[in-house]
Amino acid sequence: MSSLDESIERILDSYDSQGGINLADVQNFPNRESVVSVLEDLENIIFPGFREDFNLDRHTLRFATGERVHRVVRNLSIEVTKSITYICMIANREGTGCYKYAEQIVLALIEEIPEIRRILFSDAKAALEGDPAARSAEEVLLSYPGLSALLVHRIAHFLHKKGVPIIPRIMSEYIHGRTGIDIHPGASIGEECFIDHGTGVVIGETCVIGSRVKIYQGVTLGALSVKKVMADKKRHPTIENGVTIYAGATILGGETVIGEGSVIGGNTWITESVPPGSRIYNVTQ
Amino acid sequence: MSSLDESIERILDSYDSQGGINLADVQNFPNRESVVSVLEDLENIIFPGFREDFNLDRHTLRFATGERVHRVVRNLSIEVTKSITYICMIANREGTGCYKYAEQIVLALIEEIPEIRRILFSDAKAALEGDPAARSAEEVLLSYPGLSALLVHRIAHFLHKKGVPIIPRIMSEYIHGRTGIDIHPGASIGEECFIDHGTGVVIGETCVIGSRVKIYQGVTLGALSVKKVMADKKRHPTIENGVTIYAGATILGGETVIGEGSVIGGNTWITESVPPGSRIYNVTQ
Amino acid sequence: MSSLDESIERILDSYDSQGGINLADVQNFPNRESVVSVLEDLENIIFPGFREDFNLDRHTLRFATGERVHRVVRNLSIEVTKSITYICMIANREGTGCYKYAEQIVLALIEEIPEIRRILFSDAKAALEGDPAARSAEEVLLSYPGLSALLVHRIAHFLHKKGVPIIPRIMSEYIHGRTGIDIHPGASIGEECFIDHGTGVVIGETCVIGSRVKIYQGVTLGALSVKKVMADKKRHPTIENGVTIYAGATILGGETVIGEGSVIGGNTWITESVPPGSRIYNVTQ
Amino acid sequence: MSSLDESIERILDSYDSQGGINLADVQNFPNRESVVSVLEDLENIIFPGFREDFNLDRHTLRFATGERVHRVVRNLSIEVTKSITYICMIANREGTGCYKYAEQIVLALIEEIPEIRRILFSDAKAALEGDPAARSAEEVLLSYPGLSALLVHRIAHFLHKKGVPIIPRIMSEYIHGRTGIDIHPGASIGEECFIDHGTGVVIGETCVIGSRVKIYQGVTLGALSVKKVMADKKRHPTIENGVTIYAGATILGGETVIGEGSVIGGNTWITESVPPGSRIYNVTQ
Amino acid sequence: MSSLDESIERILDSYDSQGGINLADVQNFPNRESVVSVLEDLENIIFPGFREDFNLDRHTLRFATGERVHRVVRNLSIEVTKSITYICMIANREGTGCYKYAEQIVLALIEEIPEIRRILFSDAKAALEGDPAARSAEEVLLSYPGLSALLVHRIAHFLHKKGVPIIPRIMSEYIHGRTGIDIHPGASIGEECFIDHGTGVVIGETCVIGSRVKIYQGVTLGALSVKKVMADKKRHPTIENGVTIYAGATILGGETVIGEGSVIGGNTWITESVPPGSRIYNVTQ
Amino acid sequence: MSSLDESIERILDSYDSQGGINLADVQNFPNRESVVSVLEDLENIIFPGFREDFNLDRHTLRFATGERVHRVVRNLSIEVTKSITYICMIANREGTGCYKYAEQIVLALIEEIPEIRRILFSDAKAALEGDPAARSAEEVLLSYPGLSALLVHRIAHFLHKKGVPIIPRIMSEYIHGRTGIDIHPGASIGEECFIDHGTGVVIGETCVIGSRVKIYQGVTLGALSVKKVMADKKRHPTIENGVTIYAGATILGGETVIGEGSVIGGNTWITESVPPGSRIYNVTQ
Repeated sequence: MSSLDESIERILDSYDSQGGINLADVQNFPNRESVVSVLEDLENIIFPGFREDFNLDRHTLRFATGERVHRVVRNLSIEVTKSITYICMIANREGTGCYKYAEQIVLALIEEIPEIRRILFSDAKAALEGDPAARSAEEVLLSYPGLSALLVHRIAHFLHKKGVPIIPRIMSEYIHGRTGIDIHPGASIGEECFIDHGTGVVIGETCVIGSRVKIYQGVTLGALSVKKVMADKKRHPTIENGVTIYAGATILGGETVIGEGSVIGGNTWITESVPPGSRIYNVTQ
Repeated sequence: MSSLDESIERILDSYDSQGGINLADVQNFPNRESVVSVLEDLENIIFPGFREDFNLDRHTLRFATGERVHRVVRNLSIEVTKSITYICMIANREGTGCYKYAEQIVLALIEEIPEIRRILFSDAKAALEGDPAARSAEEVLLSYPGLSALLVHRIAHFLHKKGVPIIPRIMSEYIHGRTGIDIHPGASIGEECFIDHGTGVVIGETCVIGSRVKIYQGVTLGALSVKKVMADKKRHPTIENGVTIYAGATILGGETVIGEGSVIGGNTWITESVPPGSRIYNVTQ
Repeated sequence: MSSLDESIERILDSYDSQGGINLADVQNFPNRESVVSVLEDLENIIFPGFREDFNLDRHTLRFATGERVHRVVRNLSIEVTKSITYICMIANREGTGCYKYAEQIVLALIEEIPEIRRILFSDAKAALEGDPAARSAEEVLLSYPGLSALLVHRIAHFLHKKGVPIIPRIMSEYIHGRTGIDIHPGASIGEECFIDHGTGVVIGETCVIGSRVKIYQGVTLGALSVKKVMADKKRHPTIENGVTIYAGATILGGETVIGEGSVIGGNTWITESVPPGSRIYNVTQ
Repeated sequence: MSSLDESIERILDSYDSQGGINLADVQNFPNRESVVSVLEDLENIIFPGFREDFNLDRHTLRFATGERVHRVVRNLSIEVTKSITYICMIANREGTGCYKYAEQIVLALIEEIPEIRRILFSDAKAALEGDPAARSAEEVLLSYPGLSALLVHRIAHFLHKKGVPIIPRIMSEYIHGRTGIDIHPGASIGEECFIDHGTGVVIGETCVIGSRVKIYQGVTLGALSVKKVMADKKRHPTIENGVTIYAGATILGGETVIGEGSVIGGNTWITESVPPGSRIYNVTQ
Repeated sequence: MSSLDESIERILDSYDSQGGINLADVQNFPNRESVVSVLEDLENIIFPGFREDFNLDRHTLRFATGERVHRVVRNLSIEVTKSITYICMIANREGTGCYKYAEQIVLALIEEIPEIRRILFSDAKAALEGDPAARSAEEVLLSYPGLSALLVHRIAHFLHKKGVPIIPRIMSEYIHGRTGIDIHPGASIGEECFIDHGTGVVIGETCVIGSRVKIYQGVTLGALSVKKVMADKKRHPTIENGVTIYAGATILGGETVIGEGSVIGGNTWITESVPPGSRIYNVTQ
Repeated sequence: MSSLDESIERILDSYDSQGGINLADVQNFPNRESVVSVLEDLENIIFPGFREDFNLDRHTLRFATGERVHRVVRNLSIEVTKSITYICMIANREGTGCYKYAEQIVLALIEEIPEIRRILFSDAKAALEGDPAARSAEEVLLSYPGLSALLVHRIAHFLHKKGVPIIPRIMSEYIHGRTGIDIHPGASIGEECFIDHGTGVVIGETCVIGSRVKIYQGVTLGALSVKKVMADKKRHPTIENGVTIYAGATILGGETVIGEGSVIGGNTWITESVPPGSRIYNVTQ
């Protein structure tokens, strides 16, 4: 057994040599479980009555919503505070000041919820209208992974715009793991968006997507270059209103614009802009 | 803090303006956690001894099976009742009558289990024979996502055929989230089916798939048109017995038939029927 | 209700006719929940401080690590013992002897952890350098699915090399289900590996991958033939140092070698070797 | 093992011969866990902020209270419905009517809560003033078993007066098990009651206890006769205002009255009334 | 913090100096949680339908009972094996042999259950008849601590007679903690026993109690001498059929016999035998 | 339903009128669940190996102990900080300073543990020697409530001496609820103490108890006066070394001294000192 003791010592040593002393000492990583639990509260605030195991009515809805909102404010403010500690340190806004700053961001998110709900209902309507297999709005709200991905994205994107680091990525990877849909929190996505099936969809950080866009499984909206120096540039395409992108299509590049109302066929490979109303199909088809 | 109170009021207002009063008041959404818990019981009934943390023998197997079957009848009947309330209302079969009707469906599912087991063992055998990396039937039963997806599909498909709404979709999206394999409950799939790796596979609502079919990751069996008016038509292809479809192939259209014994190469794009015995490869290969 | 009793009897009968008596009586299946729980302990040993809900410091880190290592030795040895019972039986090393043999394997894994940590940090560095969207090492460690998949793979691969059956597959399918990245435990992967987005990636059993390789979503490194007789042959490609493989590329065959420093474009289909420094793009591009 | 099978059969047979068929078939036993969970909600409604693991403020208190009250109405109404099924059956008020009747009782309990709170605060004040060891009101509310017993009793007594069977006894035995204080739900207890230490206290069904009464550990307020024919008679003593009863005293009989302001010494045995202002001590003292 | 490290070292040192090396190394302590969980299963086997949160009917009762009985056999055999390791070691019956021996004891307990049920129903009947406050058999089964204590005692006593060490004491202390009724597993108690209120009742190891005995709170049936040399002698009294012992009575001594049908008044102190039909009251009464 | 809304408003109003605004706003109540969880850790530190569900050996004991000690320091310091906020406020030692002060107290408790262990082993030895029914030290450690009560008391007493408010009372009431033994944290108790059966034992705040004292069930060591003005006086008796006090004895008064080696019979009532070597029996005996 003494060889096990030696192994443990060598693991402890490796904490110093690899990762550096800071990895175990830094105290401000947001906690993944807490972030996920906040997302569940937010989902219940946004679509009340769909996940409960008991019936809400008008009266209980008021209390349940109030309690959830307060819990989100408390718990998410704690996680945001952890994630911005470094930023606060630089700005001399440590301790309580940093928490207050984080809370302001979370309060702004709460204020945005009616607008987020409005847009998500437009997304659900687009799914119901765009999928012949969809039988009811309830079916869409209860079981469409594209809608779950958009719900999380619209929250993560809001926090990303407010400058919150790490947490939006934890959110986007959480829902990526559950749906196979990988939307970077930085991407901007318009109303009435419909992502069908969704597995393998990748939407990059600087994408700008208009309204009434349909995206099928395996679509990549990516970068042409992955050089680190590009980090602050627009590296991902612009998709204008009313575009449909079928399964497996790849659209790359920050200057690539897919013009309004275009249809991009499956398995296509696009690295240059196409004008509005284009119909692009794989040449092998 | 009063701005938070205002935000809460505005969220409550938005429940009226978006989603309508019915979203919080309707009491009959099937509960996702209950449906998943029923699936776990069914998996243990179908493959006893693979998930338990203690050993079953002949004697305990009888009691454990009896208890699980009764629990499935009880819990799934409750969820089915919720999902068919509207149907029952129209048919004047509310209250206890509706529960009885739901229970009949669940009892029929239980009656079907020996047949479902027989087919799933044929699927497992196909995986063992079709994958050089598979070392034993136990390995297949314990770790192949394709088999998990087929297990859930064969249950969801049975309920779909019986006219149960929403619950089959909750089941199929549950296993889609865990395997990346998206099979619509409406699809008909024959015996000895082998889905390898599976991530990104999409099998549409009106697909008809024969026996001894192999499907690799990223295969789409989809529709050519997603117009809502097509909802009651056959929109997805027919795959005859003994067909193999390699990774990334896309086969579209309700009149498209892949003839018996054909091999469809990877990354191909097929929108028209091919005769039995065809060998179709991507022209770029 | 008597028809339900009949259904239960028929299910019990089908346990004999399908699956055979052994399925319920065999006592040595590794338990999936236990294996997953061991993986969580190993993740906390490898990246301490990232998942805890309280702060570790130098002092508590020592105790927490010691406790976790001992728990892994105890719990994983139990699961490995189950998985090798048949092997032990043949080698006349049943009972305590078999447990000792299993424990030796687990102790060797523990001894390897500092080396596994060193390689995973090289992977994290590759992600940070290779993705313009990555803002910090913490973000990579907390949220990149490619890194989670490599962490599990490097453990599963070690056990696979030691001849442990089934458990490495349970591990690889667990993380496949969470990331969409399907790496067979048999695959050999060098340092500084970066798998971006990852959904739909398939890396076959006999792949040999060098250092500094980048792999994007939807890449398949597969076999040309899936005949069972090939089970002991090298069926999957060799990827040399410094290769980049963009999204959706398919590389097949055990004799296929992608030469050092090559770049393989998206959606390409490769079944023959390419020399070092090649640039291969889809002809439709 | 076949002897075990025989044992199981004999146990099943004994369900018929002992307890009767009804014991397993009757569906309307209140569930002990649910009743205890309702008591915990009621305790949090009555003394908010003492058991929470997070801080309530004015705003969250409103939502938390509303949610808890609604949960109590829902869950306790279900349990009360079960307990009164037989009564409802006789009164032709089955099904929904019975639930409505149960709900009326629970709503009346909720309406009584401010009054129950007022009396419990008078009890807490009596403890603080009556025990030299008590340092603060917080200490009394957080740790005095006598106060916990009175809290549960005042709820159980209310339900008992409304004619609810069984549930008040489940409540009183629950707190008896935790405090050693056994107060029958039928007992009537005035304000500013202080039960110190409490272990072994027994207060019978038809006791009538005034205000400002102090009771120490091991005190029995019991019946002289335990003949079943006495069930509807007053069998237990009357304790007038301001009486103190020291440890181990036994006071028996339905016609026994302890006059106002009396002091009953420890280990005394009283079966006849004593006038106001009496001082009764054990003759051996 | 280094003083904390020193404290930890001193605690570790004290494990050697106090308690001896064996306390941490001995592996065969029965686990308290497991024993309690077995008791809960046994309670559900003995009184099915009283604790469930769902309805049992004739069909599910069979499966539920079978499953519970098998679980008790498995789990209690493990705990009994631990408790008798030392005995087995002496008898050269280690390992599997010891488990078999333990299992024989547990199987005998299962065989005894119909008889235990019969006696417990006689106890419940005695409570219903002996307490004017008892309204129904259900109320007694659901809420009388005396019955819970007797249920556990009758199981613990069976194991004690079979020579199982420690586990019967764990059982008796478990229910002592919940009811305040302390019955040593060695005590022999006849049918139709009624223990009312129960707090503070102590019944010693070598008591022999007949049928139709009533015992009230605070009764001690104890020893006159607590000299260790008395360990194998009868040290506690004999209570013949039909005796009633009121609250707080103390009866001491192994040769003390309370003759049939006697009534022992409250707070009495008895150290010598009394003839059948005696009426003994406290002289101060 | 509107009457329910009114009830809720009246409950909310009553929070202002009863209990005062502070009850919901004060943020510094120690959390009962946390305190209990700390006690469980301390019990495992003091008697390692008795409650675990897996085997500790020399190596794992070191890590487990280190981890538990650190957890106690962290969690108990948090609770102590809450309990002393008011004291800190007066002493101008708020915030971090207050936590540091709390931590000092907890570190001192940890330092005391070897001494607490030494004394508890002396208590266990006294139980083994003093109870003919005790078969082994393991039986005593696993199942004697007197030992559990002394374990908690010796911790609570240490904190009480350090001036920590409320938490010692939460601890003593927790174990009072589980054992029926009510020892005020202020009481001073010497080595080799044996409390047998224990239900109903009450030991007051200012008791001073020597070594080798035996106390049986129902013993009260109480005050003669419960006037609030006595709060800072010695109100409870002194028990010298080697005294035995049998069941139900009551000894009252701060100036009452039971001389060394005395035996106090059951059900006696003592309010004046007795010289060393006294034998006091109930006159009715």
